[in-house]
Amino acid sequence: MREKQYQKISELRQDLVSGDWVVIATARGKRPHAFSGRPASFSQPIADCPFEDPLNGGERDPLLRYDYKDTKKGWAVMVIPNKFPAFTPFAGKFAFKKDGPYQWLPGEGFHDLFISRDHERHIPELMSEEVDALVRAYRDRYRAVSQEKNIAYALIFHNHGHEAGASLGHSHSQMIAMPVVPMSVAESVRGSNRYFRETGKCVHCVMIRHELRSKKRLVEENDRFILSVPFASEIAFELRIFPKKHQSNFGALSDDDIAHIAQILKRALGKLKKGLNDPAYNFFIHTAPVGDNYHHYHWHIEILPKTSTWAGFEIGTGIEISSITPEDAAKFLRSI
Amino acid sequence: MREKQYQKISELRQDLVSGDWVVIATARGKRPHAFSGRPASFSQPIADCPFEDPLNGGERDPLLRYDYKDTKKGWAVMVIPNKFPAFTPFAGKFAFKKDGPYQWLPGEGFHDLFISRDHERHIPELMSEEVDALVRAYRDRYRAVSQEKNIAYALIFHNHGHEAGASLGHSHSQMIAMPVVPMSVAESVRGSNRYFRETGKCVHCVMIRHELRSKKRLVEENDRFILSVPFASEIAFELRIFPKKHQSNFGALSDDDIAHIAQILKRALGKLKKGLNDPAYNFFIHTAPVGDNYHHYHWHIEILPKTSTWAGFEIGTGIEISSITPEDAAKFLRSI
Repeated sequence: MREKQYQKISELRQDLVSGDWVVIATARGKRPHAFSGRPASFSQPIADCPFEDPLNGGERDPLLRYDYKDTKKGWAVMVIPNKFPAFTPFAGKFAFKKDGPYQWLPGEGFHDLFISRDHERHIPELMSEEVDALVRAYRDRYRAVSQEKNIAYALIFHNHGHEAGASLGHSHSQMIAMPVVPMSVAESVRGSNRYFRETGKCVHCVMIRHELRSKKRLVEENDRFILSVPFASEIAFELRIFPKKHQSNFGALSDDDIAHIAQILKRALGKLKKGLNDPAYNFFIHTAPVGDNYHHYHWHIEILPKTSTWAGFEIGTGIEISSITPEDAAKFLRSI
Repeated sequence: MREKQYQKISELRQDLVSGDWVVIATARGKRPHAFSGRPASFSQPIADCPFEDPLNGGERDPLLRYDYKDTKKGWAVMVIPNKFPAFTPFAGKFAFKKDGPYQWLPGEGFHDLFISRDHERHIPELMSEEVDALVRAYRDRYRAVSQEKNIAYALIFHNHGHEAGASLGHSHSQMIAMPVVPMSVAESVRGSNRYFRETGKCVHCVMIRHELRSKKRLVEENDRFILSVPFASEIAFELRIFPKKHQSNFGALSDDDIAHIAQILKRALGKLKKGLNDPAYNFFIHTAPVGDNYHHYHWHIEILPKTSTWAGFEIGTGIEISSITPEDAAKFLRSI
């Protein structure tokens, strides 16, 4: 692994009542447009794009690089550290710090970028070999960081469009690796563990079998993966991709599965683009935390188009209000 | 209480893994601009505003009405049912329904609007007697719905600006009363209960005393309430208002306290408006659930300016990344 550069560490503060974590990352204040609330246009002219030559800063080697099969074409996907990281390598002692009745942890970890070569094309328009390289990069980098000290969880995510929080138009994904398991993930891990203890079954496998049989919320499937709308969708036209075979950890994704998941991910995002007029969206991979105690969990990708804005009710309760049934959303997406 | 009008009930679906709830409210699909993703302008001309004469529809009496002291001026605040409710009164049997491995509950409850008279002025610009009437309306309506059958929780909230999910510019607040306690509230209630069992103290009272003493995150106080920035702020410039005296349930707010909380709420929102260039914001009241078993909880108001957009990381983990420290945010807001 590359030589670590230490900088001002962020604070991972814990809410004394709920146990939730927040990150105070003042080094990110250097980002342009930090508090304007209204970011500049999502699309930048190619001349202003920092991802056209990711190594142009001079000081950085790529963490990983994947070339086209036709090697004359150069790199297809590059993984580099984020210049404005929320979590960073840390030379100090990793331990809870006190502040009155409160506590916080150093924000030790990694924050990486996955950049695809082309400035204009997003995942639905990429060639198969480009999406394959992207998914392979996700998996390889995930495997590497999950071996590092003090990493409890790593989230791979992708923001598309500025309503979804993307600040640059050039297609890119991110991975944040952190020293705690986020509460929302811990809650689902607890839920799948409880279900396993009560029934001896993986709750996700039960849902996958039900969705394949009932077909009400199924959008499509291939040999290895299923694409469906969740029964309790958090947002209209939400999609999830599950491996059909039980697999807890994303890092266990085999070479043989890469083309299959790349194909269904590209098709899922293509359906949203065509059916909903190129909406902004986020997707992320929910995997078991780092470690061997999560055989009851089943990793998956969640895709959330920005079909509504979280307002006071959603923020105050965590409950989304959808005005289309998941069954109607699935029917519509099947037809695209 | 007014005669109930029954309509298609929404579905409160439960996520089989996490236990989280979502609402599928297809009757709300009638709302204009439902899936465009880009709402029309937040400000409407007064001629198009449905809140100028809230009873113009003819079929509805107000649930509550508060007049100016100078009664010639008519009503200052009116409470009416939302025309596009997420939760409604329900004539059927209230019980879990099964759907394969999943379950859902009827969305029984109430969804009300609190409308202040003036089309242009928002809370920071309202006169004291208008904010007093608004807070009194919150409390009185909260007290009424918490007596209704099958109500476990009621959230009062306010959305300002279309980035915060407000679809109309005329100032209004809402209350949604529902038959379950939202998971995010339940988590905090559990946290305060755990702290009480371990220490014999209210965790919020401990935090309030610490904030008043350290002053690092204190913005201001009056005789009865404190305004401060939370140690683990979920978003930059977040504010919370707590009653200094221990009080679990918002419905217990006394007549004597109304002017004090109205004053600090108006000042808090005025500071955000002036300091952050009139940002969009949400606020809501977190109170103990309905019932007598929550003496360890301490109600409060949370105010969240829209200083950033939730993207893939925040949605995937529930962890916010802030680029200003709560201490610096408090210092800035004290200076306004």
